[in-house]
Amino acid sequence: MEEKAIQDRWHEIGSYCWGCGRSNEQGLRLKSFWQGDEVVATFQPAEYHMAFPGVLNGGIIATLIDCHSLNTANAASCQAEGREYDADPLSGFVTGSIFIKYLKPTPTEEPVFLRARVKEMKERKITVTCSLYSGETECATGEVIAIRIGQSKLLG
Amino acid sequence: MEEKAIQDRWHEIGSYCWGCGRSNEQGLRLKSFWQGDEVVATFQPAEYHMAFPGVLNGGIIATLIDCHSLNTANAASCQAEGREYDADPLSGFVTGSIFIKYLKPTPTEEPVFLRARVKEMKERKITVTCSLYSGETECATGEVIAIRIGQSKLLG
Repeated sequence: MEEKAIQDRWHEIGSYCWGCGRSNEQGLRLKSFWQGDEVVATFQPAEYHMAFPGVLNGGIIATLIDCHSLNTANAASCQAEGREYDADPLSGFVTGSIFIKYLKPTPTEEPVFLRARVKEMKERKITVTCSLYSGETECATGEVIAIRIGQSKLLG
Repeated sequence: MEEKAIQDRWHEIGSYCWGCGRSNEQGLRLKSFWQGDEVVATFQPAEYHMAFPGVLNGGIIATLIDCHSLNTANAASCQAEGREYDADPLSGFVTGSIFIKYLKPTPTEEPVFLRARVKEMKERKITVTCSLYSGETECATGEVIAIRIGQSKLLG
């Protein structure tokens, strides 16, 4: 597994995300790492990230899958194009759509583990599949379609 | 618009959700209201709920759509079956899957507005469509499939 998280390699403008930005002190600060051709992450939920007592909220799961998959897409595009992660302008893939299927209740007590991989890469569209596990149990699985946009559009 | 939020009418066990539970002090505390055959909600994001500065995070959007839609499904099932919202056992619909298409960047400065309605209701499965707006602009649209489960399964 690579030592440096993908999120710690982006340009500062990409470091404020509530789900995974290193500079967002109130955020989840997810850290994703290349491991071969997969991207993996571990996250310890807070107890208050619940849907019901002891069960992880579906919106937190969606946030983790979204951020993890988008980092996978952006990092994979940098690698494919030989760009540095922190090159300016940013590569500029954002989430076009997300689909998540919730398979099992996910405990908040234990860390969750994410695995993502690129399913298809086109110039303007990257499809990433991602699953979230608690221990050995696959609790949710999803697909994120990342869309390339220009840097100017990143800020609305 | 009904005066009392759907989330304020559930049994205590359903009041701790990070996205919409009235008893979760660290949560988003979304409040959803019937308005005719739609369910509506308004939410003011915090600045730190960003993806990029000034732009709302996709995971927060997913959380709002998930919670708003699931409240719609559970409330609609209570109405269809003539059950009180806080009857014990709970009606027990949980999110089976969620699909969201992100259409436009959503500003964090302004409140967002949610509109949901039941698309299809079956005994064990309710499909809800939901869109999120900033002002007049539809920024995201989604579909949530709610699945009925027994009360015992709600707590894992």
